[in-house]
Amino acid sequence: MDQSGAMKRRMNTPATPPPSERGTVRRLPQRASYEEPVIHAILDEGLVAHVGVTVEGQPYVLPMVYGRIGRNLYLHGASVSRLARQLAQGVPVCLTVTLLDGLVLARSAFHHSANYRSVVALGTAVLVTDEGEKLRALEAITDHALRGRWAEVRAPNAQELKATSVLRLPLEEASAKIRTGPPRDDEEDLPLDCWAGVLPLRLMALPPVPAPELREGIRPPASLFENKSPWNPGNV
Amino acid sequence: MDQSGAMKRRMNTPATPPPSERGTVRRLPQRASYEEPVIHAILDEGLVAHVGVTVEGQPYVLPMVYGRIGRNLYLHGASVSRLARQLAQGVPVCLTVTLLDGLVLARSAFHHSANYRSVVALGTAVLVTDEGEKLRALEAITDHALRGRWAEVRAPNAQELKATSVLRLPLEEASAKIRTGPPRDDEEDLPLDCWAGVLPLRLMALPPVPAPELREGIRPPASLFENKSPWNPGNV
Repeated sequence: MDQSGAMKRRMNTPATPPPSERGTVRRLPQRASYEEPVIHAILDEGLVAHVGVTVEGQPYVLPMVYGRIGRNLYLHGASVSRLARQLAQGVPVCLTVTLLDGLVLARSAFHHSANYRSVVALGTAVLVTDEGEKLRALEAITDHALRGRWAEVRAPNAQELKATSVLRLPLEEASAKIRTGPPRDDEEDLPLDCWAGVLPLRLMALPPVPAPELREGIRPPASLFENKSPWNPGNV
Repeated sequence: MDQSGAMKRRMNTPATPPPSERGTVRRLPQRASYEEPVIHAILDEGLVAHVGVTVEGQPYVLPMVYGRIGRNLYLHGASVSRLARQLAQGVPVCLTVTLLDGLVLARSAFHHSANYRSVVALGTAVLVTDEGEKLRALEAITDHALRGRWAEVRAPNAQELKATSVLRLPLEEASAKIRTGPPRDDEEDLPLDCWAGVLPLRLMALPPVPAPELREGIRPPASLFENKSPWNPGNV
């Protein structure tokens, strides 16, 4: 895993300080990073964020797609949806993205773990009202899933734009947490007659499935094969 | 995707009613299911849950592994961790598991979507104090990631058990939400000269990587090859 290796090296350089007390990773702080390139790389590789809001004391965590432009994340939803309306009210949000890189299989049950890279971003989302920013955000969300897709498809019309709420979440209090490498067993367990190691996991694409009513002669587009996502069929 | 197909068929049978008003899927309710077999199947296939708790009005969403025994989910964490201590106080929790099955690529930006299966469970976690239940829960968590692994490894000793908090979350208010199938474009976009379809995504395993200090002659274990997880190397 090249990227994890690069991140690990980067994490050994003097750390950027945590953005705030509540934004500080407490558990296993040696796995934490507050460096922007590390945080951005994880956010860019993830496809789904888990977004938490609290309504009347009850947290709700919902999966959402997202996009990033510089230091802002963008979410979207149907303007009529409960979550979009909640978020637009300027409530505190937690957005978490987790990449599961492998199962860490130790000789003891206790030292079983997972290799992962995650980002936790705290903040307040703002409803985007500027039409230019809204369009750029929708482009970022579309191209985040599949780079280059926006240019291939019909852009939203006025009615569709009205039906869509876009929210901006500035990346002001974000932290990354990363575990890589083999299991760390206790010294006295090493002689056990038990296999130990890592089962690497990766999100991968299977061959694209054309829509049933697709017109004949339309080939799968460049966006499917030209970008560098690890799950892209061009890289499988 | 056999499983999605089975789920879709099952969703066409008369629906189990939602467990509560706040546990009801509001947005695109035709994608919702409240049936136990549907909910359990998604939870059993997922590996990571995103768990939300609220502290002083701020939601926090953290990735956690988990296990299921019947109608209870189990989480674990270091007894000293902030999240485990929060959860043990009986605060409201939201646990969400999302399986991303594919990118839905429509002819219009607006109709882009994702195929997914997710479960949102609301409730209150309880600290498990009974030692027998605690061990069974840890076994369920270990075997959830890799069926049969618990029997292959050294069980936790008294000190390790003490250092681990186990929490039980009863599945009393859970809903599933599922999208399957091709993009649903507007009629007038069908003639566009634009590819449309689904890019299926799947979490898959790469070949296992032995721990660097693994004793010679120890072969990868049965748990790695005999179970039926879709991401298992035996099925790749």
